[in-house]
Amino acid sequence: MDSVRIREAKEGDCGNILRLIRELAEYEKFSNQVKISEEGPCVVAYGIYYFIYSTWKGRNVYLEDIYVKPEYRGQGIGSKIIKKVAEVALDKGCSQFRLAVLNWNKRAMDLYKALGAQDLTEAEGWHSFCFEGEAMRELAGK
Amino acid sequence: MDSVRIREAKEGDCGNILRLIRELAEYEKFSNQVKISEEGPCVVAYGIYYFIYSTWKGRNVYLEDIYVKPEYRGQGIGSKIIKKVAEVALDKGCSQFRLAVLNWNKRAMDLYKALGAQDLTEAEGWHSFCFEGEAMRELAGK
Repeated sequence: MDSVRIREAKEGDCGNILRLIRELAEYEKFSNQVKISEEGPCVVAYGIYYFIYSTWKGRNVYLEDIYVKPEYRGQGIGSKIIKKVAEVALDKGCSQFRLAVLNWNKRAMDLYKALGAQDLTEAEGWHSFCFEGEAMRELAGK
Repeated sequence: MDSVRIREAKEGDCGNILRLIRELAEYEKFSNQVKISEEGPCVVAYGIYYFIYSTWKGRNVYLEDIYVKPEYRGQGIGSKIIKKVAEVALDKGCSQFRLAVLNWNKRAMDLYKALGAQDLTEAEGWHSFCFEGEAMRELAGK
């Protein structure tokens, strides 16, 4: 797949990426949680990352989303996006690059492991917790 | 524990907080991962949060650390810190507030659940993955 170009998103890609965000939500079975709207033409894959803070390690990268359209899977595009994010992380002086994956998404888990990732939930027992909605408002007394 | 005051950290608290960060690392059995140094006097608890991005929900809060010195546990100080973070999250228009906890830390898990948090690893199967060190450099081709 030498013809696939991994590049930074531009403003004009917003519509394309939104369409993929919707596909990802559908794939992850969370379609009802997408709160954004807008449409546009087509790109085949995307990744969204941002910088996070770690008390022990300093600045790290978090890969919020990675998605490849079904008909383009198995061609190494996901690996190329991950490699690109690893480059960015190193260039910015980060010692880690993190992401979260659903445990039924064996294909993704196998890919990340094959690329050298560690499953911190399995290895160290990290669980992700979330407060939201009524529980959060009650906590805040609002 | 009406005498405990939950307040924002000031510059002069750095030494205090660092001491607690070390205690937290020891408690979580990760002492070898703390890469920072400096010492100072004593405070009894701390929380560190930052804002994160969610593709579906927009801006959220992530509570990176929460720690209460052992001799001050069981007095509701951890709950007060969590309530304060929930207030900040709502004030800043966030719909979620997230944190991670080790699965052997039953006391913390029970507290978060009692306060209304959902265990997303248990409920939805989210696993936390991490690339670092040699694996990250190899990925980036560096």
